[in-house]
Amino acid sequence: MYNFKYKNPTKIIFGKGTISNVANEIPAKAKILMTYGGGSIKKTGVYNQVKNALKNFELFEFGGIEPNPHYETCMKAVEVAKKEKIDFLLSVGGGSVLDATKLIAAGTLYKNGDPWKILSEKDRITDALPIGAILTLPATGSEMNGNAVITKNATQEKLAFGSPKVMPQFSILDPECVFTLPDRQVANGIADAFAHVMEQYLTFPVNSPIQDRFAESILITLIEEGPKVLANRSDYEAAANLMWSATMALNGLIAVGVPQDWTTHDIGHELTAFCGIDHARTLAVVFPGVMNMKRDNKKDKIIQYGKRIWGINKGTDNEIIDLTIQKTIDFFESLGIRTKLSDYDVSEHIIERIMNRFKERGTKMGENTDIDYIETGAILKSRL
Amino acid sequence: MYNFKYKNPTKIIFGKGTISNVANEIPAKAKILMTYGGGSIKKTGVYNQVKNALKNFELFEFGGIEPNPHYETCMKAVEVAKKEKIDFLLSVGGGSVLDATKLIAAGTLYKNGDPWKILSEKDRITDALPIGAILTLPATGSEMNGNAVITKNATQEKLAFGSPKVMPQFSILDPECVFTLPDRQVANGIADAFAHVMEQYLTFPVNSPIQDRFAESILITLIEEGPKVLANRSDYEAAANLMWSATMALNGLIAVGVPQDWTTHDIGHELTAFCGIDHARTLAVVFPGVMNMKRDNKKDKIIQYGKRIWGINKGTDNEIIDLTIQKTIDFFESLGIRTKLSDYDVSEHIIERIMNRFKERGTKMGENTDIDYIETGAILKSRL
Repeated sequence: MYNFKYKNPTKIIFGKGTISNVANEIPAKAKILMTYGGGSIKKTGVYNQVKNALKNFELFEFGGIEPNPHYETCMKAVEVAKKEKIDFLLSVGGGSVLDATKLIAAGTLYKNGDPWKILSEKDRITDALPIGAILTLPATGSEMNGNAVITKNATQEKLAFGSPKVMPQFSILDPECVFTLPDRQVANGIADAFAHVMEQYLTFPVNSPIQDRFAESILITLIEEGPKVLANRSDYEAAANLMWSATMALNGLIAVGVPQDWTTHDIGHELTAFCGIDHARTLAVVFPGVMNMKRDNKKDKIIQYGKRIWGINKGTDNEIIDLTIQKTIDFFESLGIRTKLSDYDVSEHIIERIMNRFKERGTKMGENTDIDYIETGAILKSRL
Repeated sequence: MYNFKYKNPTKIIFGKGTISNVANEIPAKAKILMTYGGGSIKKTGVYNQVKNALKNFELFEFGGIEPNPHYETCMKAVEVAKKEKIDFLLSVGGGSVLDATKLIAAGTLYKNGDPWKILSEKDRITDALPIGAILTLPATGSEMNGNAVITKNATQEKLAFGSPKVMPQFSILDPECVFTLPDRQVANGIADAFAHVMEQYLTFPVNSPIQDRFAESILITLIEEGPKVLANRSDYEAAANLMWSATMALNGLIAVGVPQDWTTHDIGHELTAFCGIDHARTLAVVFPGVMNMKRDNKKDKIIQYGKRIWGINKGTDNEIIDLTIQKTIDFFESLGIRTKLSDYDVSEHIIERIMNRFKERGTKMGENTDIDYIETGAILKSRL
């Protein structure tokens, strides 16, 4: 394996009934800005649980953060945070709310002009407000990492940033929050976590058995437990296993010392930015195309994945790879997630726009930095 | 799975040539006390590497920390730390040096009288000097947790303590340190890490597939990579995989939300305290006895372990359990570690002393708190 550094100081508080712990985790006398989304937390009762738990704090609110959160929305929250002299941010929601909260945390203390530069110029974050999270949706892993993805509505750009400064100090994960999620969000969460694991796993072998087997452990658990959650929303044990899987999928642990390939996310972000397709669904569309396009580079790991996850032991290498890709597609489809661009009415015109953007940016992706705009076009065309 | 809390802020710096990073991890102007063992770091060159890296720091030394480190030795180091107004402790060595350093860190700032109370009375640690570690031996996992085991020579007591205050701020893991280890230390390290995993895994099922599969991932890796290290000490990849396995075996991750059973360690500590047997060897002796004695309580997990780790699929439950215990014994023996008390000339008289001590202490162990001094006696007699 490669040399690596790893540090993850986020405190996880996991289990039923844990939301009331939030008051113990925030410094006394903190002025808190609670961030949330479209208001589902009010229907589910989480909003009231948090308000009750924090009744002895000075608590401000910023709701209305959208899925694929907008830079423009974050900047409104930054204004509130500055005006009210907020000193702690509490994200209550899923990955979108938390990603937005990370930009709000950095943006409030940003001294280099427009905080969009954190994304567009990868300007390093030197300071950020402290963040805590109450997670209501297992999916993105944002609750135990320092990464976020933000969309600039004005330009239809969806970009990522990361910094240890915006890692949550704590994240509260109550699996009972899963009970009230619609099918679509559960399915998306399973697919998102699955893709996260694959992008840290499906590259080339570097003799990293712990990382490989941990990744495979998460994949198998998502395959076994995800459908249980879809079938029975009040299966607490399945919800808990799904939630912990999604967190472990992107807290950096399975990425240590191994190559990574975030091509699927990079291309998927463009499909969301241009067409508004759910993030997880873009991954289910793009990933099989990446597997097929890079079937030679990724041969050893695809075969390992096919054997260990899908039990495929017979056939030529090419037959094993074909069947493994099909099994992956079948899994996404079994969750109710369609996997072709045509399922989302995406035309060749969009492919050209994405190719042009990657050409302009000089984008090169993949574990060998060899996926350019031309291969991106070929990957997308194979998924029409 | 059960509710849990998890936080592990130790920064891991892993890989060949990483020891020179140490200077970047310690605050400028820190007065450092470097702790080490019997001097093997001088033979291997690690001592010089550290001294060179820290030439711009005020550096004191405390060597001579023994395996199964003594409270009495730690107290001498506490005197040095107080006298020299040390503000950073750097442990250079294996788990024994690091465990001692943890007691030195807490003992130097202890204000409740005799620091032995941290062990004998479980007195809570409220403050400790910051610790960094350079690990030279994969085994105990002490490099990424807040636990330590200390022996009071005067009374032949070997006791454990734990606190987040004594977690290393950073640990540098250079697998090349493995190249110079004798067979005995490599074998002991493999067995120690193996036992750590088993004691967090072999209890009763609580529907925790991630934790179970992560544990199994570490076991399989130890079984595959451990013998490679024993066979070829300069196999860097195998050394790296062994080192990372040992760290992951006891950094708390596989313990979240599941029952644990530290009976083997508790009994093993007594064998070391009374007879001076290597720690890992006591585990290899005791663990098969615990498996056999608790074969009914642990039935489901023993069968899962037998199937997933040793590929045992046929037979009655009892036959599978018998074969699984035998496979475990065979594994320890294959490392050159004997597994019977008679191999170490331990007599029934020692069993009586251990039983008496546990009777006096009112010791109850195991995931069901049902292993008392009488069962301890039976476990030990079965291993004569």
